[in-house]
Amino acid sequence: MTGPRFTPLAASLPATVPFVGPEAQERRMGRAFGARLGANESLFGPSPHAVQAMAQAAGDAWMYGDPEVHELRAAIAAHHGVTPAHVVAGEGIDGLLGYLVRLLVGAGDAVVTSDGAYPTFNFHVAGFGGTLHRVPYRDDREDPEALVAKAAAVGAKLVYFANPDNPMGSWHDAATVERMVAAMPEGCVLLLDEAYADLAPAGAVPAIAADDPRVIRMRTFSKGYGLAGLRVGYAIGAPDLVRAFDKVRNHFGLGRVAQAGAIAALADQAWLAGVKAKVVEARDRIAVIAGANGLRPLPSATNFVTVDCGRDGDFARRVLGGLIERGVFVRMPGVAPLDRCIRISCGREADLAVLAEMLPLALKAARG
Amino acid sequence: MTGPRFTPLAASLPATVPFVGPEAQERRMGRAFGARLGANESLFGPSPHAVQAMAQAAGDAWMYGDPEVHELRAAIAAHHGVTPAHVVAGEGIDGLLGYLVRLLVGAGDAVVTSDGAYPTFNFHVAGFGGTLHRVPYRDDREDPEALVAKAAAVGAKLVYFANPDNPMGSWHDAATVERMVAAMPEGCVLLLDEAYADLAPAGAVPAIAADDPRVIRMRTFSKGYGLAGLRVGYAIGAPDLVRAFDKVRNHFGLGRVAQAGAIAALADQAWLAGVKAKVVEARDRIAVIAGANGLRPLPSATNFVTVDCGRDGDFARRVLGGLIERGVFVRMPGVAPLDRCIRISCGREADLAVLAEMLPLALKAARG
Repeated sequence: MTGPRFTPLAASLPATVPFVGPEAQERRMGRAFGARLGANESLFGPSPHAVQAMAQAAGDAWMYGDPEVHELRAAIAAHHGVTPAHVVAGEGIDGLLGYLVRLLVGAGDAVVTSDGAYPTFNFHVAGFGGTLHRVPYRDDREDPEALVAKAAAVGAKLVYFANPDNPMGSWHDAATVERMVAAMPEGCVLLLDEAYADLAPAGAVPAIAADDPRVIRMRTFSKGYGLAGLRVGYAIGAPDLVRAFDKVRNHFGLGRVAQAGAIAALADQAWLAGVKAKVVEARDRIAVIAGANGLRPLPSATNFVTVDCGRDGDFARRVLGGLIERGVFVRMPGVAPLDRCIRISCGREADLAVLAEMLPLALKAARG
Repeated sequence: MTGPRFTPLAASLPATVPFVGPEAQERRMGRAFGARLGANESLFGPSPHAVQAMAQAAGDAWMYGDPEVHELRAAIAAHHGVTPAHVVAGEGIDGLLGYLVRLLVGAGDAVVTSDGAYPTFNFHVAGFGGTLHRVPYRDDREDPEALVAKAAAVGAKLVYFANPDNPMGSWHDAATVERMVAAMPEGCVLLLDEAYADLAPAGAVPAIAADDPRVIRMRTFSKGYGLAGLRVGYAIGAPDLVRAFDKVRNHFGLGRVAQAGAIAALADQAWLAGVKAKVVEARDRIAVIAGANGLRPLPSATNFVTVDCGRDGDFARRVLGGLIERGVFVRMPGVAPLDRCIRISCGREADLAVLAEMLPLALKAARG
């Protein structure tokens, strides 16, 4: 018997996965992490109102979620001052990235991103046969001018740009992003990943006309709202582009529990403001811990701090490994020269106390 | 400014959606349905243990779900007597259908299904550019011999076959399905949609070697387990095919709440057995209601009863419309001659009392 006949594209794809979860590491180590600071989750948790809404929706989970996601999209639209026709919600930004790439990118189509930016975007571009062109970071920040220039040079259909950025935590001000949108080549869409925008300082989030066909913004309930385990993201864009998601999306992909939790989370802006304040405190604390160990914390507009370990990638990987084996889950950028850094998510006092205890030991072992 | 440059395939796809949700109908009518009997949801609800597990996981929803879905896959594997390497879990069967089609079906590739079978499968085939070949139902059942013959004739890479069937509720015995697997043409995969298998009578669910590369089975927590609003489905197949899903799936698409609910639901087989008994009772009750109104209920191995309205599609559509405007959410097959029927999900006594009250009025109006 022959096996299944995969498409040539599917057959050509590597079986690698974008991220290994901390659970897999815990299974391998045979014990749980003492501090979970690697996935930029919100250790401050979701709004209690969201928890209650999910618990209540659990009893109603026998009903499919509304495939039009009407109520949540209406709430998102009201929150951002757009209409529901500008909003598509889906299974996290990861899911929406896949749908957007599928709509725009076919075999050999050019796509631009930064070298070291979000791997899951690259996973989707490869998954639909696109050709990815990478631009280096500049001073640990994405380089808007270089991204636009590359897009023009290669005739890109899509450019990925995260603001604030992951994995570096850096950001550009609103005016810079607005100039980038204005400079997009004809027929090229700017995918503005704003996963961390809820935690960014004033001035880092641009005002963009929702009808602008040159840009689509993506947001998530996974970061500031503390609902990574619910999987709800959304995109804001021109209605023509937003409507096209209906051609390819998993229409019942957002369940009833997910929709209920997201609606309640969005309504509790006071909780989000509280989280933002705690994130600022935690960033400062991580910076102090890093500094006390002779490491340089990079400025951050996100719920994590990227810490320059001061040497090369091999050294940073040893520091990372030392933290992981001491029960501190952290991650790091995958590409040089960013990989001289490790990335530490904001956490509660107790989590950061574990970090403070283990970092000197990990460093000592790494310097070995 | 030009708009986004969609792929030729994306540009060619219709903007239609596979299903309109009952919530959209309720918004249009300005009131809620009195009985929600259209989507084959389980009105008997999920296991209380699953509800509790979801409520508890809600507080932990700040953590991403395990991208390897390790614990749930292990539980599924144990339940079915296979290994976790035979199991992939995802965002409902709908999500898994999309991934499977993406892996196997490219532009112009031949796919076979029954004319009137699950529209979401067709949506995915069209969405990846496949060419769909349809075989008629035979005596209100899918026609295994005709499906296999068509697959051989067109060189299909994939055949869709639901057992028990939706929308007709009919089924084939295990031996027939096993013969169908054995007769699959070289290099053609049988997609065996067993969404309703948890509710089927003994003898309708075939024994298939999990390593058989000719077949992949799909199951769901949306039907018998009563968790349609959680969106968890799984597929059992040969490890090579199962592993390929990692190339394209949304790795974090199954959230922590979803995984927790599904694990608890699977563990409560007593609840499932109770639901199955209630489904049998409700099927009998729907049959009695139909018969009392001069309609013919078709035999069902599912949690719904397809009722032959005895005339043509226009008449059945009028009956359906009359029920909907009277607050009874039901659906019907979309293709003649199946569309002489309406499809009524099993419900609790109160739900079916609404049906019993409204069906005569809807029929009277339809007969004009």
